[in-house]
Amino acid sequence: MKHETRYTVIGAGHGGKAMAAHLALMGFPVTLYNRTAERVSAIKQRGGIDLESGESGPRGFGRLERVTSDMGEALAEANIAMVVVPSSAHAEIAKAAAPHLRDGQIVVLHPGRTGGCLEFTKVLRGEGCEADVIVAEAETLIYASRSDGPAQARIFSIKEAVPLAALPSGRTARVLEALADAYPQFIDGATVLHTGLNNMGAIFHPALTLLNAGRIESTGGEFQFYIEGVTPSVAAVLEALDRERVTVAAAVGVRARTGLEWLKMAYDATGSSLYEAIHNQPGYRGIKAPPTLNHRYIFEDVPMSLVPIAALGQRYGVEVQTIDSIISLACTIHRTDYWRRGRTLDKLGIQQLSVTELMRYVTEGHSD
Amino acid sequence: MKHETRYTVIGAGHGGKAMAAHLALMGFPVTLYNRTAERVSAIKQRGGIDLESGESGPRGFGRLERVTSDMGEALAEANIAMVVVPSSAHAEIAKAAAPHLRDGQIVVLHPGRTGGCLEFTKVLRGEGCEADVIVAEAETLIYASRSDGPAQARIFSIKEAVPLAALPSGRTARVLEALADAYPQFIDGATVLHTGLNNMGAIFHPALTLLNAGRIESTGGEFQFYIEGVTPSVAAVLEALDRERVTVAAAVGVRARTGLEWLKMAYDATGSSLYEAIHNQPGYRGIKAPPTLNHRYIFEDVPMSLVPIAALGQRYGVEVQTIDSIISLACTIHRTDYWRRGRTLDKLGIQQLSVTELMRYVTEGHSD
Repeated sequence: MKHETRYTVIGAGHGGKAMAAHLALMGFPVTLYNRTAERVSAIKQRGGIDLESGESGPRGFGRLERVTSDMGEALAEANIAMVVVPSSAHAEIAKAAAPHLRDGQIVVLHPGRTGGCLEFTKVLRGEGCEADVIVAEAETLIYASRSDGPAQARIFSIKEAVPLAALPSGRTARVLEALADAYPQFIDGATVLHTGLNNMGAIFHPALTLLNAGRIESTGGEFQFYIEGVTPSVAAVLEALDRERVTVAAAVGVRARTGLEWLKMAYDATGSSLYEAIHNQPGYRGIKAPPTLNHRYIFEDVPMSLVPIAALGQRYGVEVQTIDSIISLACTIHRTDYWRRGRTLDKLGIQQLSVTELMRYVTEGHSD
Repeated sequence: MKHETRYTVIGAGHGGKAMAAHLALMGFPVTLYNRTAERVSAIKQRGGIDLESGESGPRGFGRLERVTSDMGEALAEANIAMVVVPSSAHAEIAKAAAPHLRDGQIVVLHPGRTGGCLEFTKVLRGEGCEADVIVAEAETLIYASRSDGPAQARIFSIKEAVPLAALPSGRTARVLEALADAYPQFIDGATVLHTGLNNMGAIFHPALTLLNAGRIESTGGEFQFYIEGVTPSVAAVLEALDRERVTVAAAVGVRARTGLEWLKMAYDATGSSLYEAIHNQPGYRGIKAPPTLNHRYIFEDVPMSLVPIAALGQRYGVEVQTIDSIISLACTIHRTDYWRRGRTLDKLGIQQLSVTELMRYVTEGHSD
């Protein structure tokens, strides 16, 4: 039964290679797509990916059915397309996939960041895609993994529970069921507003990077990002960002987890403040800072996570002064208008919706 | 003749002690005032201050005429009151001085930061002071100095040219003339808008501190503030702040010096960018970062410098997005509403003025 589910993994980065190899080792027929053919030529030549992992984790040669940079070929026989690319590429993937999607196919974004499903769906519609496709998003990438060679991947850990939501959420159960043989770890994440507004990277990554900007650039990131980078004042900014995110969520009817609740849930790390809880998480020890500010912690997390949260705040009347400050500094440092390049509400297709209409849209798929 | 000028130095910090001792060694009768008597009890007991300095600088025992914490006594015989206190204390000093000021006296703020004279004058009026007093401000403190003992001071350097402006600027010449025997270094700074908007500390200090927040707190400031702290991305923020400041100045009719022009003028340091010019200034080598974020680079420079520049920008239609971001992060980190505590236009007494009226006010002393 399970071998009848045909997977296509879209994106051959650290996460995509690990997922493709793991799915193949589980026995599923897997196609791997990557936009640039050269990036997957070694995998194509070898016919698969060597997977390593810790003691009890999956390992071995994951033989792939097909490796391609042709989206039509990639999607032709797929039941489930697993999109494992930076969220800044979601719109482009949607545009490339639109002509090839067929009724009954499932697309899962790993992860959606904030507004991934909303943007993906908006692009599909704009491209005239009328196929009855279910688009879903995971709250975070299920793997901690790394690829150190062209046809290699290493899995450090697989998360035990990852919330996932479809747009509309009435179809989430069908996605969970389709994924269950491969990934029983996915659980019902309520709606895509929930998965998108529980995006903790939005809170931690850009501010931590910017408030350590001088040190990152003058040392090449040679310090402990969380242990040395999260000081009491930096944590005060993280807490302010977190309060704004949770308040924006409340304004659209979503009870988001606080940063403290998330640290408790994800790592069993506790404390009376984010500063304490982060320093009580042994897993943060040894994690180095990014080597440069030209890093996804800014160029992905700002436009794809902070901008849509700020945009929701502005639209529904929540002050997001601290989020605005971080976005603004990122724009200055990267000389880029992230406000314009980021996920604004019109790119998500929701700028005209009242709160009631928005909630109806994410649960039922229509706002009226 | 010169000994007829009676000086009162207000404030017995690093700068005030150096100035009082130096003036005394030049032969002027000097009174030293400090709000807290204990802070000057050793000076009172010894009758003066031991001054040291570099090779050719002033040194010796500067005998003071009077040491007091009574403002009435401090001002009774003064011709010129030199206010050498943090700018956040200007309003309080003005309030304390108001009942005691007499016609013909001169008050000089060292320095005014942004809006010092405007605020001081507004407070004097609010307190019902009708004496014909000239209030002036220096663009920066003329001394680089330090006090390492209760009755000691050390001068590292004395600046060669310091712009100074009176409010109104029509009276600047009288102040320069009155100061000339002691300080020929003071030059005509045009208006208090010029001295206030050429405030380079506003640009350098808070942003450099915040973008190195993690490192300052995790190392206690054990790194080179300018050489390691000003990296290309940090410099990009400084340049954005500088552009906003110069644009605000232009909007009120002031041609402010750019940061690059200032580095060239003050240190003969050149470069094609702030990053280059700062790294070409050997004097920045060895300057350590502040040991904590609880430092005047934030709690003074944000409310007394950045807030009035932002307020002028908002009033006269200039976007000050980067300045706003820095102020906002400072508010978050210090859990303080610097927007409210800072020099807003109503505290400066200029919120109702058009640009033309503002320029008339700073040049002629009335706006109509």
